[in-house]
Amino acid sequence: MAQNGTAPDPGAFDRMWADLAPVGRDDDGGYRRFSWAGADTDARAWFVQEAKARGLDVRTDCNGNLWAWWGAPGRGAVATGSHLDSVPSGGAFDGPLGVVSALAAVDELRRRGVRPARPLAVVVFVEEEGGRFGVPCLGSRLSTGEISPERARGLADADGTTWAAAMERAGLDPAGIGADPGTLGLLDVFVELHVEQGRALEDTPHAVGVGSSIWPHGRWRLDFTGRADHAGTTRLEDRGDPMPPFAHTILAARAMAAEHGARATVAKARIAPNGTNAIPSLVNAWLDARAADEAALEAVVAGVRDAAERAAREHGVGVAVSAESRTPLVTFAEGLRDRLGAVVARGGPAVPVLPTGAGHDAGVLAAHVPTAMLYVRNPTGVSHSPHEWARPDDCHAGVDALADVLSDLLTGEAVR
Amino acid sequence: MAQNGTAPDPGAFDRMWADLAPVGRDDDGGYRRFSWAGADTDARAWFVQEAKARGLDVRTDCNGNLWAWWGAPGRGAVATGSHLDSVPSGGAFDGPLGVVSALAAVDELRRRGVRPARPLAVVVFVEEEGGRFGVPCLGSRLSTGEISPERARGLADADGTTWAAAMERAGLDPAGIGADPGTLGLLDVFVELHVEQGRALEDTPHAVGVGSSIWPHGRWRLDFTGRADHAGTTRLEDRGDPMPPFAHTILAARAMAAEHGARATVAKARIAPNGTNAIPSLVNAWLDARAADEAALEAVVAGVRDAAERAAREHGVGVAVSAESRTPLVTFAEGLRDRLGAVVARGGPAVPVLPTGAGHDAGVLAAHVPTAMLYVRNPTGVSHSPHEWARPDDCHAGVDALADVLSDLLTGEAVR
Repeated sequence: MAQNGTAPDPGAFDRMWADLAPVGRDDDGGYRRFSWAGADTDARAWFVQEAKARGLDVRTDCNGNLWAWWGAPGRGAVATGSHLDSVPSGGAFDGPLGVVSALAAVDELRRRGVRPARPLAVVVFVEEEGGRFGVPCLGSRLSTGEISPERARGLADADGTTWAAAMERAGLDPAGIGADPGTLGLLDVFVELHVEQGRALEDTPHAVGVGSSIWPHGRWRLDFTGRADHAGTTRLEDRGDPMPPFAHTILAARAMAAEHGARATVAKARIAPNGTNAIPSLVNAWLDARAADEAALEAVVAGVRDAAERAAREHGVGVAVSAESRTPLVTFAEGLRDRLGAVVARGGPAVPVLPTGAGHDAGVLAAHVPTAMLYVRNPTGVSHSPHEWARPDDCHAGVDALADVLSDLLTGEAVR
Repeated sequence: MAQNGTAPDPGAFDRMWADLAPVGRDDDGGYRRFSWAGADTDARAWFVQEAKARGLDVRTDCNGNLWAWWGAPGRGAVATGSHLDSVPSGGAFDGPLGVVSALAAVDELRRRGVRPARPLAVVVFVEEEGGRFGVPCLGSRLSTGEISPERARGLADADGTTWAAAMERAGLDPAGIGADPGTLGLLDVFVELHVEQGRALEDTPHAVGVGSSIWPHGRWRLDFTGRADHAGTTRLEDRGDPMPPFAHTILAARAMAAEHGARATVAKARIAPNGTNAIPSLVNAWLDARAADEAALEAVVAGVRDAAERAAREHGVGVAVSAESRTPLVTFAEGLRDRLGAVVARGGPAVPVLPTGAGHDAGVLAAHVPTAMLYVRNPTGVSHSPHEWARPDDCHAGVDALADVLSDLLTGEAVR
């Protein structure tokens, strides 16, 4: 419920949600929005159009992130937003909910007649999922300088297209990517609204929660080098088959996660040549690991690596392990978190404060800009799936809460 | 050495080998010749051209197999040949050696002035490897009626293109596929020359061996149905992750093969959506299994299936197992085998008689036509790999032996 006494209008949110819903949706209801490719380009164009229709000033930063400004870009700005790309066969909410809610919150602030004391920016970060180029939060990592421009330019997708080439094809100059203090230095605060990935809110009366922390997490690649041969004729003792060590790695991830109360998953692999009767010459496997603290995460990764190396030795197979991304524990500033919590609570019971295992651009920005997160209730907890879902009423409550928070941040005391 | 006293001419073999070598070769030296696609089409066109240049009458049968006739097609014919398609990243010899040797043997027979008492056909079977549509020896299985036209038409490649659609695009009529007694009924005997897949001949002074049997073998597909979810946020106890059951299946194949002195390999899989942070909704895995006898093969497959089902139950994942192809034990007719052995030995020491774990069109035809195989020595035993190789001298010896055998079969007593 809006604080000025008149009911908010969910129409703008619903219309935008319906417009964006078909973009990049597969037959199974899952989304495939990969950075710089068809559906991602369409979704970005949709955002630019919506922003311009609201009179916002849209700028593309040197890394390809989109910034739509209400008020002239300047110091002390409040920023909100999320991302539009998806994992393969991802859900409709992870990312887009934060972007659509941000635009709808602008409408709501105007409806309420809020007069911002400082500029507001709605931002769309590029390649948050790492679905195409393997490194998640690539847009925010570039802007904060947490990944080198050289490494980012050389990242390749499954077809060997590099980030530099893909950006160039999109009409942007990959020579200019990198740390962007000129843009990030304008921000007083960044707030990301996101669908909850988990079901902690479902057991409460709250449609919206506030983020406390993001578990340390990362991605590691394991390359098992075997010896191609005929699966039907090569004796077991003559094989250099990378599949058994790959299998031991999958099982070790599960075992280490259980042992350390963590999450560790091998969910992606590339088998070459991937023929039924051809012992593979190469298996690339990816490990996603997250834990409540750094020590647990290190123990999980070390355990998986040990199992992979031991099995590779036993099978006469080579193995190389490399970290593709690594994000330390993020604890959102407590003062800002409590300020948001109080606004969202509106004098009622305290809103839930939630840790998460999922990475976000907010987690990357947190080391550079005061940052907070709002989560919208997810009844099943399912995410990164066509079945990811949030109730329309909860989405509307999210817009309302975000408008309340932005109103406070735009007209109240500056955060820093 | 040719029996008429003048030395054979290896030039024709070498020239053909050099012409065919670049067709479908990747940067790593491996071949990718998938039925009805670019390189396979080029290789077939190359064959037609070579056959026509020799005045052979080239016909495409109703299943897309190519038959090049020396002498009018008729009953009592002697056939020889192999295939031109490859596994992904396969070797240069598996298939093409038999085709090129057959054409070179025609040259050699003519050079010797052999006057055939019956027609000779050089045949190229389509989709022997099953590299594109999953069922090996599909061309010969169709012609012998060992697979139904309905099932074959519906087989789909990785992109969902069906056998029927691919054949139609190649200008052939998929409505007409199926058992072809009109062609096979013409054959008195079929001889396939093939590179050895194993290194039994390397320990002997023989460049050429004779086939005794083909192990019973088959391909099974295991479909693990999981529940898509976020790899970073979903608790272990809430997961329906198909990767651990997939891993147990890989390890069970290896264990069962060791237990039963057999071969069992999981070398191909499809993971969906195959995203680093997305628990898969589906893993398709393929099992290739072979054993010296039917009981051992059944035990291997049952053991792998049990392990897959047990792990799937433990992980809350569905699993369906289906046989994609199944070939019983093939024992080549002993009389024919001994006749070939005597011809190849030329009065010298007996040539090695070899069983194999590899399937061949000869194995499919054997139940319908008197059939035999010649193997050319493979110094490393490596096959289905860019490193597959045979010495040029051994290849020339193979052509010479094949010419001797064909001369005997074309001018001597009919086999049946």
